[in-house]
Amino acid sequence: MSEVIEKATLAKETTPLLANLSTLQKNTALKLMADALIEHKDSIIRANEKDLERGRENGTSTSLLDRLRLNSERIDAMAEGLLQIIDLPDPIGDVLEAFDRPNGLHIKKIRVPLGVIGIIYEARPNVTVDAAGLCLKTGNAVVLRGGSSAISSNERIVAVLHEALSKSDLPADALQLIINTDRSSANEMLKLNGLLDVLIPRGGHSLIQNVVKNATVPVIETGAGICHTFIDASADLSMAISIAINAKVQRPSVCNSMETLLIHQAFADQHLDAIVNALTENNVELHGCPETVKRMPSVIPATKEDWDTEYGDYTLNIKIVNELDEALNHIRAHSTMHSECIVTENSAHAEKFLQQVDAAAVYHNASTRFTDGFEFGFGAEIGISTQKLHARGPMGLPALTSTKYRIYGNGQIRG
Amino acid sequence: MSEVIEKATLAKETTPLLANLSTLQKNTALKLMADALIEHKDSIIRANEKDLERGRENGTSTSLLDRLRLNSERIDAMAEGLLQIIDLPDPIGDVLEAFDRPNGLHIKKIRVPLGVIGIIYEARPNVTVDAAGLCLKTGNAVVLRGGSSAISSNERIVAVLHEALSKSDLPADALQLIINTDRSSANEMLKLNGLLDVLIPRGGHSLIQNVVKNATVPVIETGAGICHTFIDASADLSMAISIAINAKVQRPSVCNSMETLLIHQAFADQHLDAIVNALTENNVELHGCPETVKRMPSVIPATKEDWDTEYGDYTLNIKIVNELDEALNHIRAHSTMHSECIVTENSAHAEKFLQQVDAAAVYHNASTRFTDGFEFGFGAEIGISTQKLHARGPMGLPALTSTKYRIYGNGQIRG
Repeated sequence: MSEVIEKATLAKETTPLLANLSTLQKNTALKLMADALIEHKDSIIRANEKDLERGRENGTSTSLLDRLRLNSERIDAMAEGLLQIIDLPDPIGDVLEAFDRPNGLHIKKIRVPLGVIGIIYEARPNVTVDAAGLCLKTGNAVVLRGGSSAISSNERIVAVLHEALSKSDLPADALQLIINTDRSSANEMLKLNGLLDVLIPRGGHSLIQNVVKNATVPVIETGAGICHTFIDASADLSMAISIAINAKVQRPSVCNSMETLLIHQAFADQHLDAIVNALTENNVELHGCPETVKRMPSVIPATKEDWDTEYGDYTLNIKIVNELDEALNHIRAHSTMHSECIVTENSAHAEKFLQQVDAAAVYHNASTRFTDGFEFGFGAEIGISTQKLHARGPMGLPALTSTKYRIYGNGQIRG
Repeated sequence: MSEVIEKATLAKETTPLLANLSTLQKNTALKLMADALIEHKDSIIRANEKDLERGRENGTSTSLLDRLRLNSERIDAMAEGLLQIIDLPDPIGDVLEAFDRPNGLHIKKIRVPLGVIGIIYEARPNVTVDAAGLCLKTGNAVVLRGGSSAISSNERIVAVLHEALSKSDLPADALQLIINTDRSSANEMLKLNGLLDVLIPRGGHSLIQNVVKNATVPVIETGAGICHTFIDASADLSMAISIAINAKVQRPSVCNSMETLLIHQAFADQHLDAIVNALTENNVELHGCPETVKRMPSVIPATKEDWDTEYGDYTLNIKIVNELDEALNHIRAHSTMHSECIVTENSAHAEKFLQQVDAAAVYHNASTRFTDGFEFGFGAEIGISTQKLHARGPMGLPALTSTKYRIYGNGQIRG
């Protein structure tokens, strides 16, 4: 039996027990997990150092090393994420609907766990903790398959969490980490219908597309973000600069950062140099449309591919558009339906943009960087869904549940 | 360009318009569709006659011909289904959540259409009308791909509905029927990411499994039903017989009918002959476990495969179990997680069964035949989801929607 099947089977066997744990039992386990992360911080950082060293030897980019790095503050944040999950209401058992039919049937719709959730992810080891906490709080078992670059960190973190769970009522087997980081183990998970109820990929485009294109287990597609910000003619200059800089440089490696800035030509007439200078001062390399390059020859001409590229780095496309509709058309053609923003003082334009742009999160006068479970107040998130089924946007606890109908009768038959 | 791509593209082009139609505009279109079905009843029945004749020539089974048949009453029921959809609240635009963050961001979660829904289905032509009505009411476009056996009925129905839509504000291109009923057209739809937002298969096991196993477009799995009824020791005899007969014979061809009857041995000691006689009088062929056959030699011994067979006909498995837990274990091993029932006067047993059985609908003292959108009061249903993601059980209007976050700021950036 392969590692994947063995661990998924162990996880599945815990699901009847998990589904019937009380909120107190689950929260006690989460608290033990948070405490254990703090207690074992040094050993986790040492394990992470091995990953970082291997990464540097392999020539890993600065932005990827940044995702991979764990320090005291980031481990605190991971533990804090677990504590926030404790404070969140437990959705399991919630009665979502209750109604009586004319024939006397009483029908209740109840929240239940999904069952076993498979997470396939890349660098960031904080996903290991977030995913464990969110899945266990919702009565799900979880099979984690992280990337090779973080395997030392992940193994250490899961060992720490297993030790914590062994002191709780929650079965440690509900949390599984796949040690084999060959592509074969991920591919095996994709076809594990009957053992896995859902797959959530978290990572770059090729990881996610491999899952979406090949999985027979239902998938929640997350993350790929080609996010746009449109600066309208009436935008406030300092707000526009502040939002554009934040959306691009505050953490360029993540999916809700901006890849393309669209600027109304009337705004560009007045302020293109101010925008370009502010971005350049923040070390952003600019790729522009012909009109941008004509006005600012320092800007590199953008290629056709640039408009569909998620840079994840200090690179940005700029396009000057004649009107709101041209911005909407550009977004329709190039958006990954993640997060899109309009900066404007014109409320009719704002409303049209928020109505017509088809994305998980649409912003008026705020940075796209806010598309995040913590920022939305959901606690740690399992990912940001960019599909339309089941969940869309930052996924908090309810995104990790299913429902079931309970029907109470006294002998009803169908006529 | 293939028929599938051409029609899916036409459907997709209508989605921005569809998403912004008022409830009144959509309801007016539905009323015109219902009126048109009644008005053109004769021509629909004539088209259906062609399908029935072809079916009889091809040696189609009685139960399949029953699914295929349209008569005046069934067309009335289809039109009535559309009128019921008019009466249902329009979920599009509903504000599901609205909250403020400490930084002043105002966040709203809004219901929006899914986009373009692909339906791949078999015999029953009423699906054509149900699917059109439910998808259009929720602002979705729909690409229907019915089976060859109902193609004459479906072509005529869609022609009638297109004529009705041409008198409405709703673009007729939002409703598409694929005329090519080769397997190739269904397979083409499975990979149509970017044009189709979701696929809903409705039909038998092999149709559904072909979609689940091969689709890269997200799928809502529906329908396959190996449903059990467990008669507990304390069950009321007349209620048990009434529910068992109803679950098996009221319409055996559909997915919520019963395939296996589990009987507590103490109940069997008293009443097995009464149960067997009642089923036999209703023309049900019985396949039994060894204990059943030992007690009632007229019962055919069940094969191993029988316990995993969806007969869709007047055939039923019977198994005698020693206790509730044996029934729960049998259901866990053989259920398709559709609809499961316990008949008992013991409320602790009822509660344990409803809690532990993992299915879309779990019943105490009522026939599994009630798992149905009409019976639940949702209006016509697009199918019964047997998966755990997005929707589970009978899918009414909210199952055909997605959500989007609108975020209102005044210059917020992330720190």
